Amino acid sequence: MSDPGSLLEAARTGDRRALGRLLTIIENQDPTLRPILPRLFAAGRGAHLIGITGPPGSGKSTLVSALTRALRDRGRRVGIIAVDPSSPYTRGAIMGDRIRMMEHSADRDVFMRSMASRGELGGLAATTWQAVAALDAAAYDPILIETVGAGQSEVEIAGLAETTVVVEAPEMGDEVQAIKAGLLEVADIVAVNKGDRPAAQQSARYLRAMLSTAGGRVGRTPAPVILTTATTGEGIDRLIEAIERHTREARSPEQSRARAVNQLRRALAELAQRRAVAHGAWLTSVEAVAERRLDPITAAERLLGS
Amino acid sequence: MSDPGSLLEAARTGDRRALGRLLTIIENQDPTLRPILPRLFAAGRGAHLIGITGPPGSGKSTLVSALTRALRDRGRRVGIIAVDPSSPYTRGAIMGDRIRMMEHSADRDVFMRSMASRGELGGLAATTWQAVAALDAAAYDPILIETVGAGQSEVEIAGLAETTVVVEAPEMGDEVQAIKAGLLEVADIVAVNKGDRPAAQQSARYLRAMLSTAGGRVGRTPAPVILTTATTGEGIDRLIEAIERHTREARSPEQSRARAVNQLRRALAELAQRRAVAHGAWLTSVEAVAERRLDPITAAERLLGS
Repeated sequence: MSDPGSLLEAARTGDRRALGRLLTIIENQDPTLRPILPRLFAAGRGAHLIGITGPPGSGKSTLVSALTRALRDRGRRVGIIAVDPSSPYTRGAIMGDRIRMMEHSADRDVFMRSMASRGELGGLAATTWQAVAALDAAAYDPILIETVGAGQSEVEIAGLAETTVVVEAPEMGDEVQAIKAGLLEVADIVAVNKGDRPAAQQSARYLRAMLSTAGGRVGRTPAPVILTTATTGEGIDRLIEAIERHTREARSPEQSRARAVNQLRRALAELAQRRAVAHGAWLTSVEAVAERRLDPITAAERLLGS
Repeated sequence: MSDPGSLLEAARTGDRRALGRLLTIIENQDPTLRPILPRLFAAGRGAHLIGITGPPGSGKSTLVSALTRALRDRGRRVGIIAVDPSSPYTRGAIMGDRIRMMEHSADRDVFMRSMASRGELGGLAATTWQAVAALDAAAYDPILIETVGAGQSEVEIAGLAETTVVVEAPEMGDEVQAIKAGLLEVADIVAVNKGDRPAAQQSARYLRAMLSTAGGRVGRTPAPVILTTATTGEGIDRLIEAIERHTREARSPEQSRARAVNQLRRALAELAQRRAVAHGAWLTSVEAVAERRLDPITAAERLLGS
């Protein structure tokens, strides 16, 4: 049994090994996957998708581990997709973090999988989405999507989630401040981790002030800021409550549709760009627009064909 | 003489009436325009494109008028494209503002044109771009693109500019605060207008603090905040200096290309969405993604065709 259709059926009835093999086929984007995509998505049970993102060093993975523990205490089956960026520097850090997840490795009701970035954003987003669908079909709920929020691509992958938790740590440097700006925009909830450090309260106050004025999504109530100490579990219950409160809001038809429109527009741009790159037409178009020899809409029309 | 080709030739040699008629053809997106688009863009002289945007009531149009006066004093020929949103409420306000521009109406070296929104974002962005090319061919430099920065579409049109000035006024309400968040992201320069009001200094300090921490473009130096009083001309020289300083940075090959990539990606998404809407396939795709029956990339592939 190695065809994705049979693997999907086995995964649905609780076969972890089949699920693992299906995820490998998804990660490799094997052509045999394509015909079962409609079945894969039809098998979804509507698990809650929670994005967890934040700069390296914020203790994101420790928080994911603590969240998993608390969710297991509530009887939930937890799926985790950890998206690894391709940078060799951050990869090392993440591999270290993974070791902390070993506490759950014997637990049949926790399924964790790392997905490596293949350098292609659209590809990784689709792969992540399909991996989430596989975990959903296998009755894991919620599914945590963990990304290192250092770049646009990771922010976009976090955008697949219904509820996005941005993890920050007190006393981080200037570089991290710059990352924050982009991250806070996607935050539904901000967790200030390492909450036992002296500077944590001050960081939380600062973030609350920032979110209520400039940051955060335009026209929406500011994201709540919650102090957590992942290593001791302090604040994790409050974080889960905030996530559950947000879920109800996030699952309104309007918000589901707005999220889908955003995802679809990004995917269209991504795919059209990828095709133009493949045809060798992308750079010519970019140069023409950059040098104002062509307007962007006409350039786009030519790229898409009429 | 009414074909766009002849009008373009006449406009290039200084015929204002021909330029006006060419702009009408552009605004109407007349089919006769299409064949001359390559010539229109080839005729460009590389004018500096300055976006001026900000919420209604910030005194944006008075500032455009004051900027125009100061640029004329420096011997520059100033082109102005004012993009009117379709909302009847703001339209009234803008029409009132236009009257202030009448001081320049006898000046042959100032050319101003309002472009109405036809409700289609992609269309308006292309139209604006083509109108800018026409003014550029007619040797106006700089060209100011004025938008009411109340919505995503206006922010996107402002994105056509090389240097974007966001105009704010002190003591604005909560609604405007919300608008600010989105606007500050696109700001290369922030002008706090009505600088003679008591709260102006405090607003400027506040904006500077906000830009240096959370707002502003990620990974770039914070946008300068400049106090201006458009009605007296106070601060306008400093604003022009800041614009000129920014131009050099904005015209690097990297930044020109990055701007073009953004514009092209937006145009691709817009155009692909518009086509899907026309084919009746858009809503079905959005629903499928919203209900997780399909991943966004596969949905995009189906919309684009293979």
